[in-house]
Amino acid sequence: MSTIARRGVHYLHKLNAANVPADLIEKGQNRVIDASLTLIRERAKLKGELVRALGGAKASSSLLGVPLGHNSSFLQGPAFAPPRIREAIWCGSTNSATEEGKELKDPRVLTDVGDAPVQEIRDCGVDDDRLMNVISESVKLVMEEDPLRPLVLGGDHSISYPVVRAVSEKLGGPVDILHLDAHPDIYHAFEGNKYSHASSFARIMEGGHARRLLQVGIRSITSEGREQGKRFGVEQFEMRTFLRDRNFLENLKLGEGVKGVYVSIDVDCLDPAFAPGVSHIEPGGLSFRDVMNILHNLQADVVAADVVEFNPQRDTVDGMTAMVAAKLVRELTAKISR
Amino acid sequence: MSTIARRGVHYLHKLNAANVPADLIEKGQNRVIDASLTLIRERAKLKGELVRALGGAKASSSLLGVPLGHNSSFLQGPAFAPPRIREAIWCGSTNSATEEGKELKDPRVLTDVGDAPVQEIRDCGVDDDRLMNVISESVKLVMEEDPLRPLVLGGDHSISYPVVRAVSEKLGGPVDILHLDAHPDIYHAFEGNKYSHASSFARIMEGGHARRLLQVGIRSITSEGREQGKRFGVEQFEMRTFLRDRNFLENLKLGEGVKGVYVSIDVDCLDPAFAPGVSHIEPGGLSFRDVMNILHNLQADVVAADVVEFNPQRDTVDGMTAMVAAKLVRELTAKISR
Amino acid sequence: MSTIARRGVHYLHKLNAANVPADLIEKGQNRVIDASLTLIRERAKLKGELVRALGGAKASSSLLGVPLGHNSSFLQGPAFAPPRIREAIWCGSTNSATEEGKELKDPRVLTDVGDAPVQEIRDCGVDDDRLMNVISESVKLVMEEDPLRPLVLGGDHSISYPVVRAVSEKLGGPVDILHLDAHPDIYHAFEGNKYSHASSFARIMEGGHARRLLQVGIRSITSEGREQGKRFGVEQFEMRTFLRDRNFLENLKLGEGVKGVYVSIDVDCLDPAFAPGVSHIEPGGLSFRDVMNILHNLQADVVAADVVEFNPQRDTVDGMTAMVAAKLVRELTAKISR
Amino acid sequence: MSTIARRGVHYLHKLNAANVPADLIEKGQNRVIDASLTLIRERAKLKGELVRALGGAKASSSLLGVPLGHNSSFLQGPAFAPPRIREAIWCGSTNSATEEGKELKDPRVLTDVGDAPVQEIRDCGVDDDRLMNVISESVKLVMEEDPLRPLVLGGDHSISYPVVRAVSEKLGGPVDILHLDAHPDIYHAFEGNKYSHASSFARIMEGGHARRLLQVGIRSITSEGREQGKRFGVEQFEMRTFLRDRNFLENLKLGEGVKGVYVSIDVDCLDPAFAPGVSHIEPGGLSFRDVMNILHNLQADVVAADVVEFNPQRDTVDGMTAMVAAKLVRELTAKISR
Amino acid sequence: MSTIARRGVHYLHKLNAANVPADLIEKGQNRVIDASLTLIRERAKLKGELVRALGGAKASSSLLGVPLGHNSSFLQGPAFAPPRIREAIWCGSTNSATEEGKELKDPRVLTDVGDAPVQEIRDCGVDDDRLMNVISESVKLVMEEDPLRPLVLGGDHSISYPVVRAVSEKLGGPVDILHLDAHPDIYHAFEGNKYSHASSFARIMEGGHARRLLQVGIRSITSEGREQGKRFGVEQFEMRTFLRDRNFLENLKLGEGVKGVYVSIDVDCLDPAFAPGVSHIEPGGLSFRDVMNILHNLQADVVAADVVEFNPQRDTVDGMTAMVAAKLVRELTAKISR
Amino acid sequence: MSTIARRGVHYLHKLNAANVPADLIEKGQNRVIDASLTLIRERAKLKGELVRALGGAKASSSLLGVPLGHNSSFLQGPAFAPPRIREAIWCGSTNSATEEGKELKDPRVLTDVGDAPVQEIRDCGVDDDRLMNVISESVKLVMEEDPLRPLVLGGDHSISYPVVRAVSEKLGGPVDILHLDAHPDIYHAFEGNKYSHASSFARIMEGGHARRLLQVGIRSITSEGREQGKRFGVEQFEMRTFLRDRNFLENLKLGEGVKGVYVSIDVDCLDPAFAPGVSHIEPGGLSFRDVMNILHNLQADVVAADVVEFNPQRDTVDGMTAMVAAKLVRELTAKISR
Repeated sequence: MSTIARRGVHYLHKLNAANVPADLIEKGQNRVIDASLTLIRERAKLKGELVRALGGAKASSSLLGVPLGHNSSFLQGPAFAPPRIREAIWCGSTNSATEEGKELKDPRVLTDVGDAPVQEIRDCGVDDDRLMNVISESVKLVMEEDPLRPLVLGGDHSISYPVVRAVSEKLGGPVDILHLDAHPDIYHAFEGNKYSHASSFARIMEGGHARRLLQVGIRSITSEGREQGKRFGVEQFEMRTFLRDRNFLENLKLGEGVKGVYVSIDVDCLDPAFAPGVSHIEPGGLSFRDVMNILHNLQADVVAADVVEFNPQRDTVDGMTAMVAAKLVRELTAKISR
Repeated sequence: MSTIARRGVHYLHKLNAANVPADLIEKGQNRVIDASLTLIRERAKLKGELVRALGGAKASSSLLGVPLGHNSSFLQGPAFAPPRIREAIWCGSTNSATEEGKELKDPRVLTDVGDAPVQEIRDCGVDDDRLMNVISESVKLVMEEDPLRPLVLGGDHSISYPVVRAVSEKLGGPVDILHLDAHPDIYHAFEGNKYSHASSFARIMEGGHARRLLQVGIRSITSEGREQGKRFGVEQFEMRTFLRDRNFLENLKLGEGVKGVYVSIDVDCLDPAFAPGVSHIEPGGLSFRDVMNILHNLQADVVAADVVEFNPQRDTVDGMTAMVAAKLVRELTAKISR
Repeated sequence: MSTIARRGVHYLHKLNAANVPADLIEKGQNRVIDASLTLIRERAKLKGELVRALGGAKASSSLLGVPLGHNSSFLQGPAFAPPRIREAIWCGSTNSATEEGKELKDPRVLTDVGDAPVQEIRDCGVDDDRLMNVISESVKLVMEEDPLRPLVLGGDHSISYPVVRAVSEKLGGPVDILHLDAHPDIYHAFEGNKYSHASSFARIMEGGHARRLLQVGIRSITSEGREQGKRFGVEQFEMRTFLRDRNFLENLKLGEGVKGVYVSIDVDCLDPAFAPGVSHIEPGGLSFRDVMNILHNLQADVVAADVVEFNPQRDTVDGMTAMVAAKLVRELTAKISR
Repeated sequence: MSTIARRGVHYLHKLNAANVPADLIEKGQNRVIDASLTLIRERAKLKGELVRALGGAKASSSLLGVPLGHNSSFLQGPAFAPPRIREAIWCGSTNSATEEGKELKDPRVLTDVGDAPVQEIRDCGVDDDRLMNVISESVKLVMEEDPLRPLVLGGDHSISYPVVRAVSEKLGGPVDILHLDAHPDIYHAFEGNKYSHASSFARIMEGGHARRLLQVGIRSITSEGREQGKRFGVEQFEMRTFLRDRNFLENLKLGEGVKGVYVSIDVDCLDPAFAPGVSHIEPGGLSFRDVMNILHNLQADVVAADVVEFNPQRDTVDGMTAMVAAKLVRELTAKISR
Repeated sequence: MSTIARRGVHYLHKLNAANVPADLIEKGQNRVIDASLTLIRERAKLKGELVRALGGAKASSSLLGVPLGHNSSFLQGPAFAPPRIREAIWCGSTNSATEEGKELKDPRVLTDVGDAPVQEIRDCGVDDDRLMNVISESVKLVMEEDPLRPLVLGGDHSISYPVVRAVSEKLGGPVDILHLDAHPDIYHAFEGNKYSHASSFARIMEGGHARRLLQVGIRSITSEGREQGKRFGVEQFEMRTFLRDRNFLENLKLGEGVKGVYVSIDVDCLDPAFAPGVSHIEPGGLSFRDVMNILHNLQADVVAADVVEFNPQRDTVDGMTAMVAAKLVRELTAKISR
Repeated sequence: MSTIARRGVHYLHKLNAANVPADLIEKGQNRVIDASLTLIRERAKLKGELVRALGGAKASSSLLGVPLGHNSSFLQGPAFAPPRIREAIWCGSTNSATEEGKELKDPRVLTDVGDAPVQEIRDCGVDDDRLMNVISESVKLVMEEDPLRPLVLGGDHSISYPVVRAVSEKLGGPVDILHLDAHPDIYHAFEGNKYSHASSFARIMEGGHARRLLQVGIRSITSEGREQGKRFGVEQFEMRTFLRDRNFLENLKLGEGVKGVYVSIDVDCLDPAFAPGVSHIEPGGLSFRDVMNILHNLQADVVAADVVEFNPQRDTVDGMTAMVAAKLVRELTAKISR
């Protein structure tokens, strides 16, 4: 209890401490969860109808914000990221075309189903097991609306687990994952939290939701991280050997024999010079162009993706990292939509 | 059309331009609005049930976030304020008691019904007339759950109009308003926008939603502002004469003969030294203690309140203005709850 | 030589060191100075003609920028101030009326003759004696164009000497000076520099350009500062006794029996909480409203004024002090123009 | 009218609205323009005489500041750049030699003719057609003073059109242009403004002022940008293919058969990690060393150059981008002077 | 153990975990502690000899830095404060005289015995009981050297307990304490830490080290804080009633019948507008001038003092709060020395 | 005298000016110096005993802070660096393993002997000759405790001279030096200061303390710098040719035939994009990964090292450069310890 309270859920404490009938609380929580999912469904449905009415799109990326930060081990700022990324995507200082020429203002390329109300659900005293289910359900509701494909805006990296789980379950089999990050996020648990942002890929691999997992940009890893990597057959590409691995990584072909490819970009895969607005500053990372080269040359059917761990509270005053996160989203949009 | 597009609604443009059947869009919008209100209702209901189960509260403040910034004339940052204010309310750097000793962790003092999803509603192409109605309906849904009273987190000052309208309609008559602000916000319209944050009090007075309107902290006012003030019988207290008016303002008694008192605090009523995180820096304002003295000594039954125009994008790196906005909310909570 | 070089004049060094005929240099310098003054004259003339054509103005304030920072003892940033103050005066975040209702967009209230090109003149190797004369001449050129009255934008405080000298010489006698500042700026010389920004009022008093000199806001003063104050009959009001002096200072009547009143506002008269963007942070100063109260209640015919020592390189990222300096200029404009 | 007013010219509005005789205004404007050009001429003449007296220089770079920002589509901060770049060039934290060993304190390498008073000219109500002519004339006045060659400090990128036009007209034929930028700046017009900073190279190509135009660093380009590129025969090198193009770009030979080479460096050609102080943050750009490698290895007779779009209002507090812009100027100086 | 480790002592963990003989460690710790105190003694002795050789001083303030931050409940930045305060005391932007004219460069007014090496002692695995004793001993070593009186630079507020204890023990009886702070710091223990910076005045009162304790500036206090205040007979002056208490507080006479007066200034007694660089931002505090008025008018023999809780990691980029803390030290110096 | 006073030693001035017997001062200084060295000895001894008790380490890095900044030519902030680097080494945002897997929490890998009290020694009036000796003696005291090897935290680059001198004298012969820096720091003297941070490697080479000296990252060098390089046989690798030299530098083998290898890393070897927190911003430097590649592949027995010139007063608000400096220290630790 105290551990959870320390993570900032004030009402949970109040609800339990007050001798209020558990039944009353649980029924209320269920009604709130149901209403939350109904709202996501309706927003996805409207956007799906629109894209289908326009016609011609086989795959269309649709933003889903998951403002969750409490499973971070250090700072919780990524919970504030989704609205800041959206603002940067449409910022008047740049135009609305991607580098290779797709037009973001075309709904067949990009729509938005808004944020899952995770903070409000937590504030009703809902625990992380049920919260993670809400995130998974929200992802499935987007995928329900063909040709929409979820492009998830985190939040901390703990959200990748419920998102990938949903994608895999919805598609009926594992995916290949391209994971760009300074850290492997594959620890069994961090400070006893199985949903920690440092453990999401352990959960994914344990659940059989991924076949291949390629980790690129790694430069903060312990012996446990390397052991877990071996245990799960992860292909870990550390920055120490990037000059050597570069050619391979800039010519990736993924997803053959599985249900598709998932791309998970932790903004801290970039060197902090390029993306200072992150919770875990780890020098020696990728340049923005390195990431672009890997992404543009990736041969894959990208079925879903996320951009996580952008922390607006650590960004420069003029929002440089917001622009970086937004451009990652923009270029992923181009990769997903067809 | 172009004017609205300039204010940032990208999908609105897409929806209209795409020759999608209007009928399809309108039905979808209505479903999204209905689901949004259902979600607010359920969250308010759970919090209301909880407070009633605990018993003993006659009036209890409940936070409702309205993250709307597009009716600002200069910057739209106030749309990011509600989550930042909540974080600051519960920040570990301060305790959970108000200055006069109320305990904020007691749900009978303070609950939270979360944010109205205004950005998502706008992104579905809903216009401002209907959006303002959603805000009004959300306020009414909170008031429905006695003893909850809405303490609204803006957003820009345009939200005060739909909020006060809802309060007045729900209570069945006008209220008295204590309005702290650097600006009168009473212009007929600003750049043709009747919902401008510079016009909210003109709409309130025209609608008969307030009897007395006291404006305190005024130091940026044009001749139109003074004329509108006279026209509506507003009691305008300019900073030029604050030393003279001080004693009167620190001993206010309001609300007799009406349905209650509404307090609207624009963070820029404070001098920018005390609250730099605002869109409109106007030197020469109130000190934080001046505002406390006015508020602590106010004799009134405060039925609802708002704290608006905090702009996190202009705050100091350590979030000083977030703490200021949070303390305004905390002390208003103490004023409302009994 | 090295002392001057240390102050940043690179060409002066080059010109002297290169064995270029002194005659060639001096003639060129004189042509540059003449052309500079011709340019000020033409700009003032156009603005004067305009105001006279509009008619009805007895006194009209006209901005003259003097971007000079090299006589500062600590930082040279005030040289960057004039364009930043102008930007803030017209910033869209505030309106164009002064607190008591004058309209700044009316040229009869406010015009602008631009900056004196002091950096370029220095870069041609012109020394401070001649540079100070250029400033004085520029001020006189503005005063030539009745009803224009110079409102000078510094620059460091060293510019007040050539400005007041010009005002006094042009009017044919001394003025009374209201001087708001954290420091008395009345040292005989600072580090051997007679034109130091810490010595300008010693020069003014020695020259007989002022009769009464009231210094308000003083809180950093040495024994020499107090002795020079006595020697010149200065009325020094220290912050230590401001609560006692307040009533007197908020009811000043100045200028009787002299040619008019000059107001010199060093932005650091304000507490750094209100004006962080200054070179010399000295806690314990005036609030912005204190300055307004003194200024609004001053009974005087203000013939000229300056706002100095705003250092944009020390301002907050959102330019709070620029807005403060701009509002000081705006309210001085209201005081001057009739 | 309102469009122009929106761009910040307050006096223009006043002059026209006040029924002042057009004749009076026009004559005054002409006198101000004449005096402005006379001042530039005299400053250039003194510097030219000096360099000629020293002897031995065939080509010598001379700074000309053009503080113009109103043709930017997003932010106007580049108008504040020239004095900040000069300060950084001579900043005590670095020495006065270029990377390959030229001594900047030698006037035969670098002189300075100061800023063209563009803000004051605009404030007199002069329109952009005439203002652009003043810029062109100023450039020609520098070129008049052999061996001075103009190294122009912007300002936004709109200034490159009048500068290149002047260079081409003065030399009597087109030049080759090496243009480093994140954007092609070749749109027909932006929001109806033919002088927009996004259109300068369309104007240059239409006017026949350039033969070859190489654009390097491009990563924000629309379909119109690519079409205009083809229409004008521009060699566009996008960042997407920089790894492939790198060897070619680091061994350029330009200017054969034309009157010389012009280098235009938009600071945003650099990745924002290296140059955060720009209006248009566009991740994925060149490193500073990439630019140096291109510049140091360029084989060309550089007849003039510009460094534009540095926005001091977006720089880090310690002025990192000012140092970057200054070093670009320093190394261009080395390239120009012989 | 884990609690302490969480507070950042890495070697403590290592030493214990490594099965190194406890005897070896303890002897080494004692030698380090002895050598640390010898060093403080020698520095104090040299400064004492100097002041005595100069003659004429009855009481002379001497700085002692205590860079300890680990007993803070929120941030540990105050450990970095002492060197930053010293730099600000001697900063070239202000002069070396106090407001009432004492000369700080005179060693009879101010000397410095440097920092107690608290970080190094902790790093040797010494626990807080022994560490607090080292602080007490260091204070006594300064007092040994008549006429030196300790002016302690914190560090967090936990240091006031060992400092006041030493002063009281050395003088042989209790003192009166003037304590300026936003918080009463009188909780029995905070999160189980009896040395918490929130409990120092509980320890002082329990130990009988103070007779009267006046707390000024209080505005964040819980019911426990008020109860502990009553229990210990503390005179708590809350900001809520400052306007009423002001006259009393600006005319204090303390110390009669006891061994002298101790002044403890927590920088957060000031409103964050005046002192943003603190760990606990609590709006509604004293102005800097309020503190000056209380201090200048205090009638007392001040035997020792501290300035604590300045957090350089939260200061503005130009170090405004460092200047504030330094001026508090400067004016306390003037109060102490005779 | 005045030159030294200008560098900030206030007491030196006082001591001499006061006619205090020189004998009294000198004896006191000697006692302070002796006590300082005793303290370093005891701290080193305890850490040495601990490592030896644990057993198995042949070489173990031990941090020694030297907070000295007064020999910088521009800013003195590096004096504040050592505690900030330590905080960053143990920051909770990263783990405690190096890139290649060494565990920093193991005392056999890393211990800490704290800071040499250089500020306090200077404040006692000790001159730079004796101060430099104290630094040398401190380094030797660490080396005395086998297997500890000093990893020195600067401070400005002037400290490398006394450190290398001590290492060479203690080992009985010269070392090879790998020196990463933007500047050669090999000028004969800078502004007459032979201990200037720009001259440390001239002193080292003159003293015969090094055989080979490789300088990498150089991009700000004058003709004197190149001449001194030739005179001393320095291998200077300028950034201009880094692409060409890269392969050689990433495969270095040093130290054969000498007593070992010393690595000196000036944080400004990095491009300011990667390390903005330095006094001398010089664009065009190494990336963090470039430095890692050089360091990881270096074949050498590193006997001692330093990381200097990190200036916390120029760092970003979130301390990015502190993390960079800390990671340099961490990876050097891995290189040293066996």
